[in-house]
Amino acid sequence: MTQPNLTRSWVVSANGHRDFPLQNLPLGVFSLNGSAPRSGVAIGEQILDLHAALECFEGEARRAVEATAGGQLNAFFELGRGPRVALRERLLELLAEGSDQQGKLQAALHPAADCQMHLPARINDYTDFYVGIEHAQNVGKLFRPDNPLLPNYKYVPIGYHGRASTIRPSGTEVRRPKGQTLPAGQTEPTFGPCARLDYELELGIWIGQGNAMGDSIAIGDAADHIAGFCLLNDWSARDIQAWEYQPLGPFLSKSFITSISPWVVTAEALEPFRKAQPARPEGDPQPLPYLLDKRDQAAGGFDIELEVLLTTASMREQNLPAHRLTLSNTQHMYWTVAQMVAHHSVNGCQLQAGDLFGSGTLSGPEAGQFGSLLEITEGGKKPIELASGEVRKFLEDGDEIILRARCTRDGFASIGFGECRGTVVAAR
Amino acid sequence: MTQPNLTRSWVVSANGHRDFPLQNLPLGVFSLNGSAPRSGVAIGEQILDLHAALECFEGEARRAVEATAGGQLNAFFELGRGPRVALRERLLELLAEGSDQQGKLQAALHPAADCQMHLPARINDYTDFYVGIEHAQNVGKLFRPDNPLLPNYKYVPIGYHGRASTIRPSGTEVRRPKGQTLPAGQTEPTFGPCARLDYELELGIWIGQGNAMGDSIAIGDAADHIAGFCLLNDWSARDIQAWEYQPLGPFLSKSFITSISPWVVTAEALEPFRKAQPARPEGDPQPLPYLLDKRDQAAGGFDIELEVLLTTASMREQNLPAHRLTLSNTQHMYWTVAQMVAHHSVNGCQLQAGDLFGSGTLSGPEAGQFGSLLEITEGGKKPIELASGEVRKFLEDGDEIILRARCTRDGFASIGFGECRGTVVAAR
Repeated sequence: MTQPNLTRSWVVSANGHRDFPLQNLPLGVFSLNGSAPRSGVAIGEQILDLHAALECFEGEARRAVEATAGGQLNAFFELGRGPRVALRERLLELLAEGSDQQGKLQAALHPAADCQMHLPARINDYTDFYVGIEHAQNVGKLFRPDNPLLPNYKYVPIGYHGRASTIRPSGTEVRRPKGQTLPAGQTEPTFGPCARLDYELELGIWIGQGNAMGDSIAIGDAADHIAGFCLLNDWSARDIQAWEYQPLGPFLSKSFITSISPWVVTAEALEPFRKAQPARPEGDPQPLPYLLDKRDQAAGGFDIELEVLLTTASMREQNLPAHRLTLSNTQHMYWTVAQMVAHHSVNGCQLQAGDLFGSGTLSGPEAGQFGSLLEITEGGKKPIELASGEVRKFLEDGDEIILRARCTRDGFASIGFGECRGTVVAAR
Repeated sequence: MTQPNLTRSWVVSANGHRDFPLQNLPLGVFSLNGSAPRSGVAIGEQILDLHAALECFEGEARRAVEATAGGQLNAFFELGRGPRVALRERLLELLAEGSDQQGKLQAALHPAADCQMHLPARINDYTDFYVGIEHAQNVGKLFRPDNPLLPNYKYVPIGYHGRASTIRPSGTEVRRPKGQTLPAGQTEPTFGPCARLDYELELGIWIGQGNAMGDSIAIGDAADHIAGFCLLNDWSARDIQAWEYQPLGPFLSKSFITSISPWVVTAEALEPFRKAQPARPEGDPQPLPYLLDKRDQAAGGFDIELEVLLTTASMREQNLPAHRLTLSNTQHMYWTVAQMVAHHSVNGCQLQAGDLFGSGTLSGPEAGQFGSLLEITEGGKKPIELASGEVRKFLEDGDEIILRARCTRDGFASIGFGECRGTVVAAR
């Protein structure tokens, strides 16, 4: 029993909550009035302080809570699936309507609005993949019109190492980066603030148990090495990227900040929203054996609706509703998360608890589904119009980007990921 | 006084030592008979246990020693130049001939041969640059015959994020990676052990004091953010690299292991071997202002001789001398380490104490100076012959690669970096 369908919680705000009903129970790290960061579980509009409720747990579940000590979930991630499931099962009992522990738990609940969220774990290494095939094709057309999808794309889950030190939780301001860019028609670069600042809508994947250097994680075992999921905004400076990225890939165009939603949504919470990996179009090659697993093909995908909203400073002043930039879905991933894990470790590369993967931008094939302004405005050629009368080719100072996710299925409670927000501030 | 020229040490093995005379005093982390890792200083054939000698230090120098506690030098790196220099000055007094502290220090000295070396710091992020222009040209010719040096090369200190989790100290075995490769003339990849395993000769740079996210480190301040230097072997699977690296750069072809020499050679020890940054060839552009500093141009380069040796299992059995693959020099760096630091942080990317940079392969322009087999054998077309009668296009199981460095100057003691060794073992 990983999804108790429609059971209600005595935490009233959880029932029908957009993101955090009883059926979700994501883990995170929060602080209250400047206290030391500590682990918690989101339930409706409240956060349950796990350590304050320690006496309610025993056995495997207690071991799991104890591993969340110290304001970082790495040790909890390292424990793997067993204790994580035990914790979930116990939380489902404790927080369900009719629980006899309400009195003890009340004191451990804090209004989320009073809490500050932190990164849930110490991120050792961050890898950004490129598995959104629609995005790869859309961007490929802009950078390489004759050659949008390179010959390796359908064989290799393409990824590259990202910068771990500048990953920040939702709400952290996004300072416009400065850097070298090559003005159109020129042969010498200039230096200054990025003029083509963009967002990228991605799924984040938290690695659980790692592997020793030299070992590989088999595709059939990969799910056991994933601790959970979040939303990830891979902020991108397109003008810096275009000038710097050959021959070794994006560098300063991405490393100024990466924002993530702070709650770790577990594989167990997402279980009802698993899907078959979308069938490969006819003519596409089969994955090589180390990337092929029947169970993964049958249920390695997800049906998670992904949304991006934009507000400008002027829109917020006028109380105008946010402008939806993107409505997409994780089903546009050409490779599953298990395939990413198997590929990343197949050369013996060591993964560690707390490593973070980004999926790459998850665009759909149609207008309204593109996961970046680069695609939406065709590199700035087709500005979008906002209800405020403003237009945007790329992001301007004061613009806020909000990522959201939503999982729905008949007969099951809907769950979400919480938000991943960031507001652009002027370059120093 | 950062180099006391030719002063001798009462640690007899230090005098005339290839790497570690009194004038070097590099820091590292070692253990003895399975003890907890602790900080030490290399002096001749001995290692001084800094904490065991704590009573010999006071003031800034003592603060420096205390910051080396815990088996990681990150906090020491974070202290910056002042305490590092104070520690050096005091060590020069303590270890010089005539020191009155010999009795106390004797007990804190251990034969290096009895010690195991560890990574000197927790590496948060690892960045590999590409500043060896001769290598960039040599490799560019192989991958892009018409376009060896891309238009950005002379403006941008090209770099990319590397994998931190698989950086290991000298002596760690190098497991041959497996992965996807595209056989010549084929359109579909195969999977198996790398058949084109290579080394890359690089200088490693340890970052000291970091910067806050959103801030930049000015070129004139960059030297204060560098804690020291090492040797780095960026082991590379050329066949995996050729197939995977477009469009986002090298990934699994590099992430299986990166080896470093375990001693951190300080800027102070290298002071006598500073050189002007080699003049740019006529017609090359000036660096953009954020990369240009008079002092850096005048003394931002180094004259460090770099050497790569190869032995095969058969050569070792026959007691044949090692085959010298490379004799090169840091003067082939097109960008200084200060330029790397200024560039890396110019977009607001946060650097942290314990970050590691690689320089990129430091080849010279001539035969005998190439820093990888890719260049030496022209991608496998011109095998080298060894004294054992064996030939090599790329590395075979049992081959050992040894990197060394040496700094010499009239009137100054020569210093070295110690070795960076790795032996290839068969794929699992």
